[in-house]
Amino acid sequence: MSVVLDAIEEKKWGRRLPDERIRDVVEGYTAGDVPDYQMAALLMAIFIRGMDYEETLAMTRVMADSGKRYSFPECVDKHSTGGIGDKISLTSLPVVAACGAPVAKLSGRGLGHTGGTIDKLEAIPGFNVALTSEAFERQVSEVGFAIVEASDAAPADKGIYALRDATGTVDSLPLIGSSIVSKKVATGAGHLIYDVKCGSGAFMKTPEAARELADLLVRLSESLGIRSSAVITDMDQPLGSAIGNSLEIREALRFLKGEPVARDLDLLAREISVELLKLKEITDPERRVEEAISSGAGYEKFREFVRAQGGDDSALESLEVASEVTEVRAPASGYLKKVWAIELGRAALALGAGREKKDDAIDFAAGVEVDAKVGDRVEEGQAVARVYGSRNLQRALEFAGRAFEVVQEPVEPVPAILGRVQAG
Amino acid sequence: MSVVLDAIEEKKWGRRLPDERIRDVVEGYTAGDVPDYQMAALLMAIFIRGMDYEETLAMTRVMADSGKRYSFPECVDKHSTGGIGDKISLTSLPVVAACGAPVAKLSGRGLGHTGGTIDKLEAIPGFNVALTSEAFERQVSEVGFAIVEASDAAPADKGIYALRDATGTVDSLPLIGSSIVSKKVATGAGHLIYDVKCGSGAFMKTPEAARELADLLVRLSESLGIRSSAVITDMDQPLGSAIGNSLEIREALRFLKGEPVARDLDLLAREISVELLKLKEITDPERRVEEAISSGAGYEKFREFVRAQGGDDSALESLEVASEVTEVRAPASGYLKKVWAIELGRAALALGAGREKKDDAIDFAAGVEVDAKVGDRVEEGQAVARVYGSRNLQRALEFAGRAFEVVQEPVEPVPAILGRVQAG
Repeated sequence: MSVVLDAIEEKKWGRRLPDERIRDVVEGYTAGDVPDYQMAALLMAIFIRGMDYEETLAMTRVMADSGKRYSFPECVDKHSTGGIGDKISLTSLPVVAACGAPVAKLSGRGLGHTGGTIDKLEAIPGFNVALTSEAFERQVSEVGFAIVEASDAAPADKGIYALRDATGTVDSLPLIGSSIVSKKVATGAGHLIYDVKCGSGAFMKTPEAARELADLLVRLSESLGIRSSAVITDMDQPLGSAIGNSLEIREALRFLKGEPVARDLDLLAREISVELLKLKEITDPERRVEEAISSGAGYEKFREFVRAQGGDDSALESLEVASEVTEVRAPASGYLKKVWAIELGRAALALGAGREKKDDAIDFAAGVEVDAKVGDRVEEGQAVARVYGSRNLQRALEFAGRAFEVVQEPVEPVPAILGRVQAG
Repeated sequence: MSVVLDAIEEKKWGRRLPDERIRDVVEGYTAGDVPDYQMAALLMAIFIRGMDYEETLAMTRVMADSGKRYSFPECVDKHSTGGIGDKISLTSLPVVAACGAPVAKLSGRGLGHTGGTIDKLEAIPGFNVALTSEAFERQVSEVGFAIVEASDAAPADKGIYALRDATGTVDSLPLIGSSIVSKKVATGAGHLIYDVKCGSGAFMKTPEAARELADLLVRLSESLGIRSSAVITDMDQPLGSAIGNSLEIREALRFLKGEPVARDLDLLAREISVELLKLKEITDPERRVEEAISSGAGYEKFREFVRAQGGDDSALESLEVASEVTEVRAPASGYLKKVWAIELGRAALALGAGREKKDDAIDFAAGVEVDAKVGDRVEEGQAVARVYGSRNLQRALEFAGRAFEVVQEPVEPVPAILGRVQAG
């Protein structure tokens, strides 16, 4: 019997897979020796029967080992499970780099309502996300801040993820955890914070599910030699104001220059920066972060980073956004009970800010800006958001209109940070 | 979302699949629109979560409908779940045909320790298993007895079975039940007995599992308009004496001529014949069966059937068996506690009597003859079996030697028939 049939036989009855069997199967699949249909059967058995911590760790390790392994033990990195309007990489990372914590980040494009961090950076004219690994390492050591596209890290995860996506086996905690952490281990940063999003616009819909994932991510990372912690953050409403590539960079620059931004973004960007400095055991992290923002050091670090990767930093203040701007108005007077991130994400996607299929083009200039947060008092007809772009405008406005739920009674604002997980 | 992804989503959480979704998925898979990896994920979800009776019935129906549907409402047929030395089709069916119950049977080759009924018939010089459907129907009406190779019945089952075999999802009760009954429904015989084998040499290892399958087969068949019943029979030791293609035909002919054969074979061949006549509501079935055997009418019907399908009936009494014959001796004096069918099957396979891979050639002349049954008193060194053939002889003798387990205390013989299932 083949290795994968052995593994299927064990897992379909709910037994645990030995480490070496997991390794053989994942390596066999990546090498093309295990056919998709057998891997799909095994993934479904894992989906239903689960994997214990040791199995998940073995799977993470073998996927991390499947491609190039970088090593940046002195560096910090962050990972978000994905949300709408999430520009924390563009805000926290320049700040911590300015505070002396070097940043080495591999990032992805992926599918979604807006582009990934890599797409957002490509909204900057000239920005090059495809450095050689030598240039990547040099920039980390010289500038202390580099972000490149993850093309050769954890190829086993890439193949397995594509198969999971096609076979209904995405939403499995051990498979999600091993997928995320394998890529971070391959990236090799020694200090890592996970931002686990929770709510309508996130993969994890409940705080309990988000905490379970956060616990797993931190535990796996620590087992594999990464100092790490996690925050669980709200993604029922979008983070900050901007949703869309150039719009988000514009908002990130405002934060970096110390200009006012939405309170949730301000709070979370600072929190993540502070946590990363703590993981690096840098003293007095709150004060350092505050100074890096108020002095403009974080902003300058971002410009230096853009220049180092071939981007035109003089273009940063004048990134093109769509000239067609349509206001979204409050449907009634009262208090905002919900600002549904998922609907605003759908609006951004309809406008062209993200991609539905792998090779879709992204319109960097399109997106949505949201002016209101849960708990805000609004008047009927008041502008609560602006839609940038003209593609599928009617549909985008329908989505955006549905996002704002107004009630008569006052509503408490929702906290941006729902929980924290520390190692151990 | 596609139909199959919908089905995966339902079944992975243990929900039931509506009839029309089962139909869409099976038809889509058979048409090549559903890829193997998605079907494999669904089959594993079904394996673990199960299907209820209605789902199983829907699956059976759509697979039966996937290819040619024959219709022989007046005919009888039998189906065995497969065992070692099982020559009941060659013994009971000529008898019932001689008693006036016409037989229309589609049969398979399959993999195993010996050939299937189709292979065994091909041991007869000239025998043609590939009649056109017109010739098949004509022979059923003129001779009252025809067996052809099932090549166009239930192609959906054929494809799904091959995928199950490659993905560890064979041993699932609803999948086994729908697979078997879909082919029988496509064959179209109106009266059917299932012989569910139980023991070391069978797919079902325990009487409980065998009864569960027997219940399901009868219930599905009755729901789909086939009058049916089932017997659960022992396959811990082989049935009768001969294992191997020509050897089994030789043993079947002895039965048909009223010559002595092993008691278990004699008993079961008569029982199945009687049950089939009962399903046809033919009166006084025991007496008719006895007469068909003692008068030689069953034997004559078999010869007529052989001639009708192009076989040389004058060759029947002199079928070639291997000239190299080696005795297997009892390892000790005492009583036979076990005669392991599985080990004798392995011996036959090693000698070339069956095929391991789809296109292996079969040596019709090879096999094993067993002289002893559980409960028999044996003396050390006494011949208990004969091995026919020279291929892998050492290995075959090792397997055969392991088959005979001798103890000092007297042992009860095991019953050939362990249970019966009637419709309703």
